[in-house]
Amino acid sequence: VGFKLVIAVRTDLGMSVGKTAAQVAHAAVMATLLALGTPDLEEWLLQGQTKVVVRVPSLEELRQRVARARQAGVRTAPVADAGHTELEPGTESCCAFGPASDVALEPVTGDLPLL
Amino acid sequence: VGFKLVIAVRTDLGMSVGKTAAQVAHAAVMATLLALGTPDLEEWLLQGQTKVVVRVPSLEELRQRVARARQAGVRTAPVADAGHTELEPGTESCCAFGPASDVALEPVTGDLPLL
Repeated sequence: VGFKLVIAVRTDLGMSVGKTAAQVAHAAVMATLLALGTPDLEEWLLQGQTKVVVRVPSLEELRQRVARARQAGVRTAPVADAGHTELEPGTESCCAFGPASDVALEPVTGDLPLL
Repeated sequence: VGFKLVIAVRTDLGMSVGKTAAQVAHAAVMATLLALGTPDLEEWLLQGQTKVVVRVPSLEELRQRVARARQAGVRTAPVADAGHTELEPGTESCCAFGPASDVALEPVTGDLPLL
């Protein structure tokens, strides 16, 4: 079974490449810390910590995926920006799902296009 | 004293936004794992895990910064891409420096422009 971390990013905020990268990194670090000590994290690291960055068109879609993940028992790490630079404070910019198995993630984020 | 994580990304590889974000996230996760249990990590997390994404124009420049960091005793987490998608296997795409204090990072990456 393959393990991965999926990070879904809002494309409606007009973030720069650097800002996008920082937000995705934030989500990935949070997901790692939240999963410390779990078999999911260990398996994901052993497999080379695959990351898949996908896009969502809106806050509504992002929240819908978070709700779906929680129902499915998939760990989420949502990022609310501190608002120092490009975004308003508290803007929900992206969310990490997992690390988890491909099978667990498929119904949560499987249909989202790559960023 | 402010603490941060600086991630320097090569701009000469023509990576997509999604690829760039995944590589930066990879570096940030590695940096976090390498710093587990250190006061630097704790301080950085307490301060909101500030990340600064900057650009380097070439592999040579990236390696020069890594050398500089090692001389200065700043932790590095270089990323060599697995090569499944856009890059050749083993391509050094980016590197995280820290988490460390602003003061420690300044001579290493302070002059690099934001991505």
